[in-house]
Amino acid sequence: MSSILGFLGPPGSFTEEISLKYSRNNSPLILQEYKAIDELMEDVDAGLIEMGIVPVENSLEGSVNITLDMFVQLDVYIYTELIYPISHCLMALPGIELEDIKDLYSHVQAFSQCRKYLKARMPSVTQFPMESTAMAAEKISVLGGARAAIAPRRAAKLFGLEILASDIQDGYGEEDKTNLTRFVVISSHDHSLTGTDKTSIIFSIKDSPGSLYHILGVFAENGINLTRIESRPARKRLGEYLFFVDFEGHREEKKNMRALKLLEDQLKYLKMLGSYPSVYLPSGS
Amino acid sequence: MSSILGFLGPPGSFTEEISLKYSRNNSPLILQEYKAIDELMEDVDAGLIEMGIVPVENSLEGSVNITLDMFVQLDVYIYTELIYPISHCLMALPGIELEDIKDLYSHVQAFSQCRKYLKARMPSVTQFPMESTAMAAEKISVLGGARAAIAPRRAAKLFGLEILASDIQDGYGEEDKTNLTRFVVISSHDHSLTGTDKTSIIFSIKDSPGSLYHILGVFAENGINLTRIESRPARKRLGEYLFFVDFEGHREEKKNMRALKLLEDQLKYLKMLGSYPSVYLPSGS
Repeated sequence: MSSILGFLGPPGSFTEEISLKYSRNNSPLILQEYKAIDELMEDVDAGLIEMGIVPVENSLEGSVNITLDMFVQLDVYIYTELIYPISHCLMALPGIELEDIKDLYSHVQAFSQCRKYLKARMPSVTQFPMESTAMAAEKISVLGGARAAIAPRRAAKLFGLEILASDIQDGYGEEDKTNLTRFVVISSHDHSLTGTDKTSIIFSIKDSPGSLYHILGVFAENGINLTRIESRPARKRLGEYLFFVDFEGHREEKKNMRALKLLEDQLKYLKMLGSYPSVYLPSGS
Repeated sequence: MSSILGFLGPPGSFTEEISLKYSRNNSPLILQEYKAIDELMEDVDAGLIEMGIVPVENSLEGSVNITLDMFVQLDVYIYTELIYPISHCLMALPGIELEDIKDLYSHVQAFSQCRKYLKARMPSVTQFPMESTAMAAEKISVLGGARAAIAPRRAAKLFGLEILASDIQDGYGEEDKTNLTRFVVISSHDHSLTGTDKTSIIFSIKDSPGSLYHILGVFAENGINLTRIESRPARKRLGEYLFFVDFEGHREEKKNMRALKLLEDQLKYLKMLGSYPSVYLPSGS
């Protein structure tokens, strides 16, 4: 039986693009579109769908805050992490040349991420901000005329557009043209040990000097490498913080089991989001 | 002479609402609209405008990631922190009643944040996602008919709409109906000591077990209370992380000066974003 993979729409978005790539390598998976991250995660929690793809860092689409809030509220686990370089493409209907373009449609953040290219190559176009890059591509395919969109490669295919330029996002210096985003595949369970795993947990500590330091000592003393730490105020109680921590290794490895046991004893709230492999998905079709 | 305060548009947004509130308490300030956070921050850096307001946490408008990236690249400082509860209002043209409404316009995140109210009170309306809540309010003021928008209170005033319900966002349990956001006022310099200050720094460490732990030890040993910590991969070098850390107190207080001196000796990259008071701005007109 095929499993269902929920993703945040609309079709033509980066999230659909990465969901298609993921499902190609992990068939049989049937894609199902959602309009909101929280609904998607609730359906995974309720067992209505088997898996979902949600952003956890630096996303153009959907709020990472919602994802983190829902991880606190629900019982869903991380099955796989997907690292994906966002590649912005300039696209228009067949026959339109770069120098013809008068109006440009995209998400406001995409304009911002492509500012150097636009300044150099299209200084006099009028920018029309849209709710998403995918909707921008659809819009110009319907309106026709001297219009272009900045959108994912996938959107060009879907709406019959031609790509005039790809990877037009600003680099931060010559050697770095990437704009990496992090998504996770969520499920009712996490992943078995692969040997190159990461583990994510959420915990809360009292807001007092040194308390975070002492908790991090548990990791340091067990030689565990943290790869990410983020604090956010807990919504229910002022002066209390939730920490979202990722570390290297699987929760079933001995030193991690030892550290997690120590944390459990010292923290009043500790939630395991699961252990999972991290996969880099190259951009392009 | 009046100073200019840059804010992220469009008019009617939460950012304009908070900018108006701030300028009322700190006149004379002239508001100037920007379309992108990075352009706003660059103009403060270049001295073209004196101040700007940008989001740093949990924002519906604009990306917090862009703000953090620009803090790394530019020489701008935090002058004041503003804590602001996002209040979603349901609004329509005068004469329209709640039960008349067929079509509802807003930002997709606002729909999501008001899901319980919408499910209970407006289960059969069609939702039209817009690029911003302010644009949604403007749209229904132009289109007329049985339409409503979810937008900030300010937008109703600006576009001649009537508020049908306020604070319609979901609460996380009965006692918490707030959706707090954090903005900062930026300038070419930080704030002098007020007695209730916070300080923000950015630093980088090598990705090795325990290195963060040892750096946090400097704070713990000096009795300094961290109020926020966030790590992000440094863009230029793989395996290196940037930490965005806030702590209580002013950089000119003795124990903080001692800790900062120790950090400077141990870190190869340490950037001071400034010391500043934190101000809670209540919602409502």
